[in-house]
Amino acid sequence: MNLLQYCSIFVLIVVSANCKNVPSVEEVCSKLLSKDLKKEISSYKDVTNEIIKYVREGEFKGVTYDELAKFVDTFGPRPSGSQELEDSIDYMIEITKKEGIHDIVTEELEVPHWVRGEEKITMLEPRTKDIALLGLGKSVSTPTEGITAEVVVIEDFTELETKSVEGKIVVYVPVFTTYSDTVPYRSQGAARAAERGAVASLVRSITPFSINSPHTGSQYYEDDVTKIPTAAISLEDADMIKRLYERGEKVVLNVKMTSTLDTKISRNTLVDLKGSGNPEKLVIVSGHIDSWDVGQGAMDDGGGLFISWAAPVVLKRLNLIPKRTIRAIFWTTEELGLVGAYDYEERHRAENGNINFIMESDEGTFSPTGLEVSGNQMARCIVGEVLKLFKSINASTLVEKGEYASVGSDIGVLTKTGIPGAGLLNENEKYFWFHHTEGDTMNVESPEELDLGTAFWTAAAYVIADLSIDIPR
Amino acid sequence: MNLLQYCSIFVLIVVSANCKNVPSVEEVCSKLLSKDLKKEISSYKDVTNEIIKYVREGEFKGVTYDELAKFVDTFGPRPSGSQELEDSIDYMIEITKKEGIHDIVTEELEVPHWVRGEEKITMLEPRTKDIALLGLGKSVSTPTEGITAEVVVIEDFTELETKSVEGKIVVYVPVFTTYSDTVPYRSQGAARAAERGAVASLVRSITPFSINSPHTGSQYYEDDVTKIPTAAISLEDADMIKRLYERGEKVVLNVKMTSTLDTKISRNTLVDLKGSGNPEKLVIVSGHIDSWDVGQGAMDDGGGLFISWAAPVVLKRLNLIPKRTIRAIFWTTEELGLVGAYDYEERHRAENGNINFIMESDEGTFSPTGLEVSGNQMARCIVGEVLKLFKSINASTLVEKGEYASVGSDIGVLTKTGIPGAGLLNENEKYFWFHHTEGDTMNVESPEELDLGTAFWTAAAYVIADLSIDIPR
Repeated sequence: MNLLQYCSIFVLIVVSANCKNVPSVEEVCSKLLSKDLKKEISSYKDVTNEIIKYVREGEFKGVTYDELAKFVDTFGPRPSGSQELEDSIDYMIEITKKEGIHDIVTEELEVPHWVRGEEKITMLEPRTKDIALLGLGKSVSTPTEGITAEVVVIEDFTELETKSVEGKIVVYVPVFTTYSDTVPYRSQGAARAAERGAVASLVRSITPFSINSPHTGSQYYEDDVTKIPTAAISLEDADMIKRLYERGEKVVLNVKMTSTLDTKISRNTLVDLKGSGNPEKLVIVSGHIDSWDVGQGAMDDGGGLFISWAAPVVLKRLNLIPKRTIRAIFWTTEELGLVGAYDYEERHRAENGNINFIMESDEGTFSPTGLEVSGNQMARCIVGEVLKLFKSINASTLVEKGEYASVGSDIGVLTKTGIPGAGLLNENEKYFWFHHTEGDTMNVESPEELDLGTAFWTAAAYVIADLSIDIPR
Repeated sequence: MNLLQYCSIFVLIVVSANCKNVPSVEEVCSKLLSKDLKKEISSYKDVTNEIIKYVREGEFKGVTYDELAKFVDTFGPRPSGSQELEDSIDYMIEITKKEGIHDIVTEELEVPHWVRGEEKITMLEPRTKDIALLGLGKSVSTPTEGITAEVVVIEDFTELETKSVEGKIVVYVPVFTTYSDTVPYRSQGAARAAERGAVASLVRSITPFSINSPHTGSQYYEDDVTKIPTAAISLEDADMIKRLYERGEKVVLNVKMTSTLDTKISRNTLVDLKGSGNPEKLVIVSGHIDSWDVGQGAMDDGGGLFISWAAPVVLKRLNLIPKRTIRAIFWTTEELGLVGAYDYEERHRAENGNINFIMESDEGTFSPTGLEVSGNQMARCIVGEVLKLFKSINASTLVEKGEYASVGSDIGVLTKTGIPGAGLLNENEKYFWFHHTEGDTMNVESPEELDLGTAFWTAAAYVIADLSIDIPR
């Protein structure tokens, strides 16, 4: 049970009780963690500082940024099923081997290969104007001449039920609150509009900020519903259409989109720095190597990929070999449905009990602030204690989620089975400004912040992988 | 002499003197302004507050935003020489007449009509990638097949002198410091690169921030130099090209651009609210009605246009007729070289002595903070005293420029001849994020901020137009 649940239950029992009476994390953990364990964890202070110093001031200073820049400049975006993705996987293996790490395995799997073609939306009435768009993942094509129809503006799914959209183009205009609250209009918008007879579905991009910059992303058709073309449009164009519509103007759009969808073979990549004591036990650090087909996938998830690549590399260079194996995983095809992660979970199911802890960075690699942890109370307390080692770089924040909770995109597939794990917390307030846009490039990244990320990620994984006890389930 | 000059001269004479010894604006002005004049100005407190209340809480609340939104949604961008610009001028006249203001004159003039055609830049080496671009104003076309050449990256004009760019595409990558310091790479880049034998010239967009959003703008060929095609590219693509170049990679681009250039007739629009005492004397409020051909010209300069439109409208509605005439000018063709402003200055030269004060808003209509004033010390002191009336809305900042200084784009043409004037100061820290991009839309504007702008602009113009004394030259 995590603290949040604890608090809620408490309130239910003693109606007017103040949550201040609920024991703090400190109080809970001070009872759970033995003095010896705390002492053991704090004894990692020196090695933690050694890693931080090496990455921020030593030979590794700037390496994460430079390597990431070279990578994205060489391959550009790496969509699922593309040759660029496969070439970039080969490249990652090559640069890892150059570091003297040869325990590298790739695991082949079938992945969707959706290729965006020509895309154009033209407002025909009340005046002619191009609309800024990006088709959504796996969207079907329109007929060659496009789909021309009148717009119905929809604020939320409740309104969808009350309006006639038969033969119309639905334009969803939800105002961004949080990503998880707003994204259903992107992921389910087409299916739900089609159910009501719409001929195409557009969604105001899922972002709080825009410079006329549309955001692509995944969406899911339903088996028993007609597949209609679907795209995200910019905040600016969505809001303009909404204003025109609310003034009673008839808004007519022509939507032209082409795409192809087939399957290809791609690969998850597993890089092992074998443990010195219990090599069969794993502490996994990970990020996904695939990206959307726009921008360069530098932020989503080049940064997460490279700090995870850096973890075994830095430890190898410093000759710091923890008891358990550090495994870096470069997930394939996260963007089109966590395909790599599902394959890994299934393929390794018999041995996943050996995963001691699994980490992923997929929400930005701005300055790290701590970890969001999924696991039981004891697991969370141990990680919280480890995080105290990172006060000097302001990365000691522990956000607690319960056992089986998702704390990352790919690793959610594994933490949901009860494996304890963590997602990187970082100063990612602007993450969704760039997410899935042409603006996801190196300009979002900073050498200093990536160094902090690498230092934190490497040292945290090292300590957890070297502790005398396993992270409990 | 303005205070800045005063301070510098003082330092020259008494080498180690501290500038604290220089009299403050308050001290200087308290000697210049008579007690009676100060009393007179402060007596406008009530009428100022009446205007502010009417615009922020009364019948005019939200009107500026709504009217601006209707305007840009109806006409979209309004480039020099376009039919949309002329239609939008007719519309402004129509909505002004609806307010019962009929003293409206339009003055025809010849303006450039540059029309952007197809634009595409493709990086061919070291890999294939589309580059985000916007051709610069009056850029010539490339041959149909485009120009294919190797890139030379240039950091500044000094470096241009040291590198061989003959037959190459120059990519200027100046890092944005201030607009005025950085913009020469856009405005003079092509001419200077052509002088050195380059075949095309690209510039990192003149902005501190980007979501892969290129910024167009004006540029000037020189008569004796070959006209080469020129465009702005996004920060992201410019920085990627720079990184590749610095790694020693050969970067080859294909630049395809088409455009046409001819001349058309456009119009400045002069709207007069005739003064009750000295109608021949003018206090001018202004903004430009033309825009670039991208975005909607909501910020540049729809906001300035509409707060200037609102000034006589609000005064008429409140039946507040000042002694001098309030003239709102909607300048045409600011973006392609201040063509409207130059025409006005020349056409009215004989009577420009009657311009008591001239104001322009062309750097955003975010929350107003005060005025940047061009004029002699007495003029600046009077305006500074007027600004004290706006403490309640935090718009009392006086920034002093000397006589003949430019404090606005169009009005610079007139203040440079010695006419005192002012540009609107406002919280425009993000102005250059959107300037000349597809993101210059209503999403940048806010109803509350536009109300503040209209209230401040109207009341400040009213007080200056009604004072017992002229603003001195």
